[in-house]
Amino acid sequence: MEKMKVAIWHGQRDVRVEEVDVPGAPENNQVKIEVSWCGICGTDLHEYMGGPIFIPAADPHALTGVKAPVPLGHEISGKVIEIGSGVTRVKVGDRVALCPIIGCQECRWCKSGVMGICDNVAFLGISWTSGAFSQFINVYDYMCYQLPDEVSDENGAMVEPFSATVRAIDQVNVQPGDNVAIVGCGPIGLMAIQAARIAGAEQIFAVEPAAKRQALALECGATHVINPITEDAVQAIKELTNGDGADIVVECAGNQITGQLAGHIARRKGRIMIMGVFEKPAPIDYSDIVFGEKIVMGSMGGYGLYKESIEMMAKKQFNGAPLITGKISLDRIVEDGFEALIHKKEDNVKILVSPV
Amino acid sequence: MEKMKVAIWHGQRDVRVEEVDVPGAPENNQVKIEVSWCGICGTDLHEYMGGPIFIPAADPHALTGVKAPVPLGHEISGKVIEIGSGVTRVKVGDRVALCPIIGCQECRWCKSGVMGICDNVAFLGISWTSGAFSQFINVYDYMCYQLPDEVSDENGAMVEPFSATVRAIDQVNVQPGDNVAIVGCGPIGLMAIQAARIAGAEQIFAVEPAAKRQALALECGATHVINPITEDAVQAIKELTNGDGADIVVECAGNQITGQLAGHIARRKGRIMIMGVFEKPAPIDYSDIVFGEKIVMGSMGGYGLYKESIEMMAKKQFNGAPLITGKISLDRIVEDGFEALIHKKEDNVKILVSPV
Repeated sequence: MEKMKVAIWHGQRDVRVEEVDVPGAPENNQVKIEVSWCGICGTDLHEYMGGPIFIPAADPHALTGVKAPVPLGHEISGKVIEIGSGVTRVKVGDRVALCPIIGCQECRWCKSGVMGICDNVAFLGISWTSGAFSQFINVYDYMCYQLPDEVSDENGAMVEPFSATVRAIDQVNVQPGDNVAIVGCGPIGLMAIQAARIAGAEQIFAVEPAAKRQALALECGATHVINPITEDAVQAIKELTNGDGADIVVECAGNQITGQLAGHIARRKGRIMIMGVFEKPAPIDYSDIVFGEKIVMGSMGGYGLYKESIEMMAKKQFNGAPLITGKISLDRIVEDGFEALIHKKEDNVKILVSPV
Repeated sequence: MEKMKVAIWHGQRDVRVEEVDVPGAPENNQVKIEVSWCGICGTDLHEYMGGPIFIPAADPHALTGVKAPVPLGHEISGKVIEIGSGVTRVKVGDRVALCPIIGCQECRWCKSGVMGICDNVAFLGISWTSGAFSQFINVYDYMCYQLPDEVSDENGAMVEPFSATVRAIDQVNVQPGDNVAIVGCGPIGLMAIQAARIAGAEQIFAVEPAAKRQALALECGATHVINPITEDAVQAIKELTNGDGADIVVECAGNQITGQLAGHIARRKGRIMIMGVFEKPAPIDYSDIVFGEKIVMGSMGGYGLYKESIEMMAKKQFNGAPLITGKISLDRIVEDGFEALIHKKEDNVKILVSPV
C-alpha cells in the first residue's frame, strides 16, 4: 500500500511526522484531496505549546469518536483528485479551499446554517481522523470551496483563517466610517485589519508591540500603530477618536491582559469581538462593561462566509503576500514551523507547509 | 437655620449620621423634595464595605466637583414641597420617584437620550452634593417622575432599582417564551425575576444558595430554584432546557465566580446581562464565549424606562411587598441597615429608611 507522511500531535511539544497509509477511495459523499499548502494556525501552536485545548485527549470526541494522538492541519488548499459517487459540488481537477468544520447535520445549529456552533462540532486536523499536514486527505464534499484562477494556492490556504476574520467583522457589525482597534497583530490580527478595511473602517488602530508586526499592520491597512508596552493604548486611542474610544475592538491575542484591555479601548456602547485563543479564563472589567454599556461577543470560524472571502481574494481586496513569512516542507514542521513561531516570533507570521 | 440629619460616607465602614442645614429654596430648574422612603441599594452596601468604588475619593467628580465625604441615598420616593420658577414637569403636592442620574446635558449620550452613560455621569447620593438619606433634598426637575395613587410610597422607593432591571431585561431583549436564568437573588435579582416574568419569560431559573431568597424568588415568579453550592447549576439548567442552556442569563451577584458561571449557564448564541456590582475585575471564560458565540453586555440604570416601570407597578405586575424586609429610621442606618445587610444577609433583602 502506498505510504505518505503526516504530522501527528501526541502531547505538548510532541508533534511527530509519521508514515501512514494513503487514504483509499472516497466514500459516496466524500472527496479525495491532494494538499497543496496547509498553514500553521495559532490554534495548532497553542495545542503544541499548551494543549490539549480543543484536541480530545481524555475522552473520545462526541461526534467523531477521535481521541489523541490526532493528525494536525486545517488551513488548506488542494486539488480534487477523486470524488465519491454522490458528489456534485466539485469535480476532479478543481482547485479548492477547505472549511475544516464538521457538524452533526442534525442539531438546531447545523439545520439553521450555523454549523460552526454545532452541539458536537468537530474539526479536520483537531478532532477528526485526518489532518492536512499530509499529502492526501478524504473530506466531506460540503467542506470544499472552489478557488477561481485569480486566487493562488498560497492564498487558498489562508481562506480558512481569513474567513474567520471576515465573519467576526460581520458579526460585530463594522460599518463604513467606524473606528476599529485590533489588539494583537499575529496572522489573525493582520487579517482582521484587512477585513475591517474591506468593511469600510475609517481609522484602524493596530495595538501591537513587535516592530515587524507593526510594519505589517500598516501594510495591511492600519492607519495607526500603538505599542501597548510603551504607550497607554486606551489614552492614545481616545486621543485619536475625539475622546471617545474605538467603536469596535477585535481582540486577537488571547493572553491574560488583552481581553480586559480590549474592553477598556472600546468607547461607551462599543463592541468587543474576541478572536484570540485563550488557554484558560482571564479577567474582564465587568464594571466597565456595565458603566459603558459595552458588548463582548465571540464568533466561531468562517463557516457561512467562505465564498465571500474567496471573492475578496479574487478581487485583490485581500493581500496575503506580506503575511507569508515561511514556506517549509512537512519534514521540517517542528523545527522550522512550531519552534520558529515560538522562538522567532518577531520574524514569523504565517508559515505554509508543503506536504512533499 | 433649620437643621436635618443626613447619612454621610466618610470611608469603608465609616458612614455617619450628621446634622446639616435644610436646603434653601430650589433654583429655577430645581424641585425641593420631602423624602418619604429611601432604600439601601447594593451599591451603597458595596461602598460601605469596599468603597470607594463609584464615590469620587481621590479627585473631585468631573461634572459635579464633589469629593468624599459624600451624602448617600438614591432609591427615593417623596413629595414635592416647593418648585423653582421654571419648573413645569411637577407641581407642589405631587408624589414622585426620583431618577438619581445626573448628566452633563451636552455630550452625545445625553443628547441622544442615553443619559445613563453620559461622558461624565454623576449620581445623587454617590457623586453629588445631596443624598436622600435625609429629610429634604433639592433635585433637578428632570429627575422627578410622578407616582399615581396606585403606587405606594414604599414601592415608589423601589422604582430606581426596579427600572434598572426593566431596562436590563429590555436591553438583553428577553422575548415571550425565552428561558431566563437569574444568578444571585438579592433585591436586584428578585426584581429582575419580576421584570423577566413581565416580559414573558417562560421558565425562570433562580440560581441562589440562600433558602429565604430561594423562597422569595419563587414568590417573585421563578419557576425553578437551583442551589449553585450543592448542585451543578450549568448541568441542572441544561436538563431543564432540552440540553441547551438558558437563552438569557442575568448576573446579579458581582462576585469572583458568578460572571463566569453566568456565561457557562447560557446556551450557544445566548446572551448574558451583567447587573452585579463588581468591586474589581473578575474572570470570564473567553473561549466559551467564542465557541458558543455568546454575547456579554451591560446596562446602566433605568433611565428611559421610569414611566414604564411605574406603570408596571400601578398595574400590580410588580410585587414589591415580599422584598421589603425592614423599615428603619435614619438614626439606625448603620446598625439596622448596613450591618444587618452584612451579618443577617439571609434575613434581609430591601431595607427602606425613613428620614425621620
